[in-house]
Amino acid sequence: MLKKGLLGQLIQNFCSLPGVGPKSAQRIALYMLQRDRNGARLLAETLLDALKNIDYCQQCRTLTEQLLCEICADTTRDNALLCIVENPADVWQIDQATAFKGYYYVLHGRLSPLDGIGPNELGLDILEQRLATASIQEIILATNSTVEGEATAYFISEIAKKYTISASRLAHGVPMGGELEFIDSGTLSHAFKGRKLL
Amino acid sequence: MLKKGLLGQLIQNFCSLPGVGPKSAQRIALYMLQRDRNGARLLAETLLDALKNIDYCQQCRTLTEQLLCEICADTTRDNALLCIVENPADVWQIDQATAFKGYYYVLHGRLSPLDGIGPNELGLDILEQRLATASIQEIILATNSTVEGEATAYFISEIAKKYTISASRLAHGVPMGGELEFIDSGTLSHAFKGRKLL
Repeated sequence: MLKKGLLGQLIQNFCSLPGVGPKSAQRIALYMLQRDRNGARLLAETLLDALKNIDYCQQCRTLTEQLLCEICADTTRDNALLCIVENPADVWQIDQATAFKGYYYVLHGRLSPLDGIGPNELGLDILEQRLATASIQEIILATNSTVEGEATAYFISEIAKKYTISASRLAHGVPMGGELEFIDSGTLSHAFKGRKLL
Repeated sequence: MLKKGLLGQLIQNFCSLPGVGPKSAQRIALYMLQRDRNGARLLAETLLDALKNIDYCQQCRTLTEQLLCEICADTTRDNALLCIVENPADVWQIDQATAFKGYYYVLHGRLSPLDGIGPNELGLDILEQRLATASIQEIILATNSTVEGEATAYFISEIAKKYTISASRLAHGVPMGGELEFIDSGTLSHAFKGRKLL
């Protein structure tokens, strides 16, 4: 009502960010205008700068300012291993948590025919070219453990078969520190089937 | 680690928004670059536009694009009543929830000597001029019900006394729909003291 005009528009725009509701958007907009005008200017300028300069890495499709991202440009990594993930954030997550020293490929989504996301939207044609020509021996399918993520992993494993490249999938099981009482039955059943000898 | 450069900077900037932590900042930055580049551009441009054009209303100090905000420019309101609030959001809140048809004054904070916020930072000198010259008969002190908010209200009520303007404060009590079991003892004690005959 009183939130029309430029201020209303600004609140509306903050509201379209993921995880930001109307109250938070209002709080953010007022905070920037009341208390942190320099920070706000910096944010706006960095955002415009990022939109202009950040694009997909030509090799792995993660987000980068260069033609090749930091990982693809690093020639000391193991080029027999390729880890396939849904999002750039997964690359950061895996690189931080594991000792994986191969390369990555970012799908930017998962197969979802109902939303019009097919193999081409995920760059699977480019991935297939890479599997055909590069010296990859194993792909690690680290898509999310959702129905669509599983379907995507299966679809890519079929492509890998054509080039006799082995495909692996992250292990399912009980999370570290997890109490059995609170774990869903699907996970528990997977953990039981995948039990290991001590 | 991998989040350096422009992308890291963008995440950092989103992280400085109130209520946005590192994970949310990462999610917002990736969302904008992956899925909503037009929305991101619009947000950045609106923000720059707002920083340039939105300033304090000359009369009530709320945020506005004009010299006078919509409420101050409305001459049909009751100029005997002035409601004093801490933030522009409180103006919206009160205007939406109540039938108040007077004018507002926005402090942009509360008295807090430890943080270096004194009467001048809150524009109390301008407020005093207004109390001295305008036809105000009652001020409604709608600062927050915190220690600092109460102190600010008391301080302003003392100024009002000089000009024989009556000062009122929002009622304390049980919130609508509130269960007594879960109400803090301070509120309950206030509600008890302020009980009304049916």
